[in-house]
Amino acid sequence: MRRFNPDALKKLIYSTLERKGADAGSCFHVSEAVVQASLRGVDSHGISLFPHYCAALQAGRINPHPRFRLVRAGAGAAVFDADHGFGQHAGAAAMQAAVDSAKECGVGAVSVKNSSHFGAAAYYGMQAARQDCLGLCFTNTNDIVLAFNATKPFFGTNPVCLAAPMADEEPFTLDMATSGLSMNKIRNCIRTGAFPAAGQAYDKEGKETRNPEAVRSLGPAGGYKGYGLGMMVELFCGMLTGGPVGPEIIPVGERLDRPRYLSQFFAAVSVACFQEPQAFAARLQAVANAVRALPRADPDIPVMIPGDPEKHCRRQRLVTGIPVDDALYRSFLNIDEAFAGTLM
Amino acid sequence: MRRFNPDALKKLIYSTLERKGADAGSCFHVSEAVVQASLRGVDSHGISLFPHYCAALQAGRINPHPRFRLVRAGAGAAVFDADHGFGQHAGAAAMQAAVDSAKECGVGAVSVKNSSHFGAAAYYGMQAARQDCLGLCFTNTNDIVLAFNATKPFFGTNPVCLAAPMADEEPFTLDMATSGLSMNKIRNCIRTGAFPAAGQAYDKEGKETRNPEAVRSLGPAGGYKGYGLGMMVELFCGMLTGGPVGPEIIPVGERLDRPRYLSQFFAAVSVACFQEPQAFAARLQAVANAVRALPRADPDIPVMIPGDPEKHCRRQRLVTGIPVDDALYRSFLNIDEAFAGTLM
Repeated sequence: MRRFNPDALKKLIYSTLERKGADAGSCFHVSEAVVQASLRGVDSHGISLFPHYCAALQAGRINPHPRFRLVRAGAGAAVFDADHGFGQHAGAAAMQAAVDSAKECGVGAVSVKNSSHFGAAAYYGMQAARQDCLGLCFTNTNDIVLAFNATKPFFGTNPVCLAAPMADEEPFTLDMATSGLSMNKIRNCIRTGAFPAAGQAYDKEGKETRNPEAVRSLGPAGGYKGYGLGMMVELFCGMLTGGPVGPEIIPVGERLDRPRYLSQFFAAVSVACFQEPQAFAARLQAVANAVRALPRADPDIPVMIPGDPEKHCRRQRLVTGIPVDDALYRSFLNIDEAFAGTLM
Repeated sequence: MRRFNPDALKKLIYSTLERKGADAGSCFHVSEAVVQASLRGVDSHGISLFPHYCAALQAGRINPHPRFRLVRAGAGAAVFDADHGFGQHAGAAAMQAAVDSAKECGVGAVSVKNSSHFGAAAYYGMQAARQDCLGLCFTNTNDIVLAFNATKPFFGTNPVCLAAPMADEEPFTLDMATSGLSMNKIRNCIRTGAFPAAGQAYDKEGKETRNPEAVRSLGPAGGYKGYGLGMMVELFCGMLTGGPVGPEIIPVGERLDRPRYLSQFFAAVSVACFQEPQAFAARLQAVANAVRALPRADPDIPVMIPGDPEKHCRRQRLVTGIPVDDALYRSFLNIDEAFAGTLM
């Protein structure tokens, strides 16, 4: 397995996007977000998305020079028009608006319309957490998760993300699809020859399948509970913006010349309105440490809190680099032979 | 199976609490909330809790005349001291404060400390939804859900609730424990002789059990995802208020002379800041109807959205009454023989 140097890779992703006409905010946030996700081991939402992003930019789905518009809907709320720019750029701007509202009002909520794929939600949650807020974010996506007792999907994998500041380490980060698996994990199965977990993947008739090529829909996490959470996310996303929902959304890999009109929701709660922020971060640290010290069921695996596997992976990959398999490496070389120069 | 007349039962619960010294707000919200939950078929959080509430009031855990204090932490945020009153009374007041903030700022968040068991979270979510808001609420509770790879629990069943207005029916309502089962469901198993579902209940060594009497902890919904959501809820609850978390909280059935210092979180998002409320409610209605019209996997079960089973049950029980088994009926008679007069 080849390995990319994260810093060199980030710089070349930035300059590649710049050469393709993207503005500075897009270059910065896309390169940061995909490299951060890959460092954290979230390979489904990391650098593996970059070739798709280039294709979507090329085909016209993504606006390289979006003109964002933020309409204040109230002291603590705003509607943000992403103008079909990169979701990473729009998301970072929208979360910042939510944090700014939270610093003033205690809480801020920003609903984003006309957006595109925003990668890993943790990027925006952590942005808020680093500013002493609880940062919450959601995105909708196209119909891929089976509705309760249906043979067809309706809502997307609609992830939930929460981040919060900790005293002695990177923020607490929960970032989870409300489906059992994400579609990017299925795509990674196809690329790497792996199989999706049992009871999580369904074919076009709504019957279970372990063949990743045959997967047309996914099961919700925890049965009807994940399905309910997926609908909750859509209420905060497409329902609040008035944008398309579930089956009205173009799948990520289809019709790259058309924008997807995705909706996202960002909220921040300022810790300082409720607690002294240092005391909050110290207590969350103590709670995390107490959980990690519980007796283990499997002695070979640590007791973990959300985000621990990602933090562990990041520490390793900062040293060893970001692994890239043959297929992904070739698609990077297809974009620019110069990516060969970013290998460790 | 005997059946209570819901209206007669509600009135007698009200007057019983009044006779025991509870203030008008407590009598109103406890009687409303438990009867509403039972009508909706949420038997684990309905009238079955009333004997416990009476015992907790008698023993001193619950303050029958709480003096609530609301400290505005910002235009959109507040800290609410429930003064150890009934969680239903405090919760309704706190959600109203969140809705009032949302009407002014677009969004409102209220963190409640020094609270007690608040019953079914849907009560507060629906309160916000009836005022054209998305209503979100969380509560913490004592350590009962196994942490990831641990043999001991840390966080509680920490439910997530979201409600939203619909055009032609009662609000959309998602109300779910982040554990696979709730402890009240285990208690109902003990009372009715049923067994907890496989893979959901654990004994004091952290080993799976189907014997409800042996259950000391629960599995999270959807594996690590439910565990992560449970921790998320605690961040908004005990972590934000500075109150006790997980293992620091007295279990509901122990030391009834001591308050539990529960923490809850209520948030409201005013639909009007984002969408014309009637258009939102009509579109959510259309989305719900489209989901329900999907082809069925099991032809004998409808395709449902969250809250559908509860709405169906409510329609039935408004006519047939609220079922009460022998053990629960006896405990009502122990409180007051007059409950015999509220049977259908």
